[in-house]
Amino acid sequence: MEEMETNNYFESYEDLEIHKLMLEDSARNLAYKDAIFNNKQEFLGKTVLDVGAGTGILSVFCAQAGAKTVYAVEASDTYKIAEEVAKENKFGDVIKVIHSKVENVTLPEKVDIIVSEWMGFYLLHEGMLDSVIAARDKFLKVGGLMFPESATLFATPCSVPSMYSFWEDVNGVSMTHVGPKLRAKTCQKPVCERTHPDCLLSDADNVLWLDLREVTMEELNKIEVRHLAVANKKGRYEGICLWFSCTFPSTTVEPVTLSTEPDEPLTHWKQTTIVLPSSLEVEEGSPIAYDLLLKRSDENARRYIIEVTMLDPSEVEHPEYCLCHLTKCILVRAVLDKYEKGDMECAENK
Amino acid sequence: MEEMETNNYFESYEDLEIHKLMLEDSARNLAYKDAIFNNKQEFLGKTVLDVGAGTGILSVFCAQAGAKTVYAVEASDTYKIAEEVAKENKFGDVIKVIHSKVENVTLPEKVDIIVSEWMGFYLLHEGMLDSVIAARDKFLKVGGLMFPESATLFATPCSVPSMYSFWEDVNGVSMTHVGPKLRAKTCQKPVCERTHPDCLLSDADNVLWLDLREVTMEELNKIEVRHLAVANKKGRYEGICLWFSCTFPSTTVEPVTLSTEPDEPLTHWKQTTIVLPSSLEVEEGSPIAYDLLLKRSDENARRYIIEVTMLDPSEVEHPEYCLCHLTKCILVRAVLDKYEKGDMECAENK
Repeated sequence: MEEMETNNYFESYEDLEIHKLMLEDSARNLAYKDAIFNNKQEFLGKTVLDVGAGTGILSVFCAQAGAKTVYAVEASDTYKIAEEVAKENKFGDVIKVIHSKVENVTLPEKVDIIVSEWMGFYLLHEGMLDSVIAARDKFLKVGGLMFPESATLFATPCSVPSMYSFWEDVNGVSMTHVGPKLRAKTCQKPVCERTHPDCLLSDADNVLWLDLREVTMEELNKIEVRHLAVANKKGRYEGICLWFSCTFPSTTVEPVTLSTEPDEPLTHWKQTTIVLPSSLEVEEGSPIAYDLLLKRSDENARRYIIEVTMLDPSEVEHPEYCLCHLTKCILVRAVLDKYEKGDMECAENK
Repeated sequence: MEEMETNNYFESYEDLEIHKLMLEDSARNLAYKDAIFNNKQEFLGKTVLDVGAGTGILSVFCAQAGAKTVYAVEASDTYKIAEEVAKENKFGDVIKVIHSKVENVTLPEKVDIIVSEWMGFYLLHEGMLDSVIAARDKFLKVGGLMFPESATLFATPCSVPSMYSFWEDVNGVSMTHVGPKLRAKTCQKPVCERTHPDCLLSDADNVLWLDLREVTMEELNKIEVRHLAVANKKGRYEGICLWFSCTFPSTTVEPVTLSTEPDEPLTHWKQTTIVLPSSLEVEEGSPIAYDLLLKRSDENARRYIIEVTMLDPSEVEHPEYCLCHLTKCILVRAVLDKYEKGDMECAENK
């Protein structure tokens, strides 16, 4: 018996370290807190479901905002901490901690609001979004609110100095043989690393936009986009940087957005980079074309396979008004600019 | 054969990630580089041994400074990278990479200088100092130089917010039950974590000072000190913070010191904290007494067992002139101050 206790203990210690990391991420905590506290009128006397409650911090925010009942569903042993935290914050009666996968839960009622911090690296990795969708379809009242309400995944071509240029001059020593050795491995899996905003080579393109009130699990099986980015400066194209943002509902004030963009204060999600096997010099105006595929792994539906296919930018379709420096786009742009100017002159002549 | 290649590859990938971490630590790299470049006259035409050369960066610094021969001894597979790095920097002839434990090496000559980056967490953890000592005794000429030449381990009582106060208010939520759970584990092993300078409660005391020209392995078997620190501010005594500094020889300019003090820019060593099982309020002037023991593990001589024993400050010996607020020390201090003032007055009267 004592030995089992110890084993359980160590299991939950690993969990604890991860929860510590998340709880120390105050950008994350405060986005939820602000979104909930800015909308106290929505929570007052209402019933809330917290999917994957962890240590219960979001459940406490909801209770503090005036929720009548919060169902805090947590499948791991961390539910014990959520119970203690609920009591410690005098919400032992409001917060009902349920030790279960949300898929197996039965609740005595439907809920007005679902809150969940389900986002993984590059939004979908190890994500619990499937569970949130299942919970929504089963437990959310018609017209109920989702916190967050929408999520967007972004991608931008970038340079990756830690895998490339860093090794060209390590305090005066050339180590270019090391880069390829690192890349041989990192090209096989995404790298979770901070990307400096200066490393981004283009404006962000959307990979995915999810309306969390409506998205279905099937929509998450395979995400496939073709991007034509245009470099907004000279640089080295060495990877695709991914990040996400989530937006919370609000009827009264500016909706809160939790963003993991390189420009924003660093969160525990950092950014995710798909490192390319080779470096390519680009100029301001260079078109960069690639297909990005995120597909559930056959072995584990909670994991994704990410594939980047580099395309010849001259062989893919460009937008009608394209800022790239390919001759065709320059010509079309000139014509369109002239037309627009003409229109304006016409308008002015009237 | 191909499978073996793959296995080796993965082994060295783990190593690579660690070397990346170290090479990204430019405070570390530049301390060695500056120490070596400031003393080029010592390196010019000389023979150097680099103990645990890793990727070979220090060997290249020595070659750049004009060394005739650098023996770069590396026991792990990383020696292959050191070979490539030597060639890439045009020192393939100067740097002789030797794939071996330094204890098993035979060199054709004695060396003028030993360089080594052997320091582990809290100086001694997983340290290779034993190897450096063995190499020194076997290969260093009489009067030869050690880079670094001395090392000091420091200790100071500190507060540990990540294990204590953080949990009292996580963005408005009380989680005091989590702290003890984390501490139950962290009290069993030192924590490698950045300590904010504000968390230090007293001036640093020396645990250990090593003259690397003379230290013996036996001196490293057991380090035992009794510290009486005096709190220089009000705070919570929750741990002992350990860090180290190393000093390099110099005959001409100010010697270079590589310091991992909380006040200095963060290195990959961060600081090491021994977390105490409970928090104790101290006032400015409170005496804090403890015994600190670092003892080689019986199972693995490269690892240390660290023991902190908290002592009753009224039962240990205080320095003659002690700044603590115990009545006896206040009285003695008053008398000594008076005497000193008297002496000065006498001196002035003369």
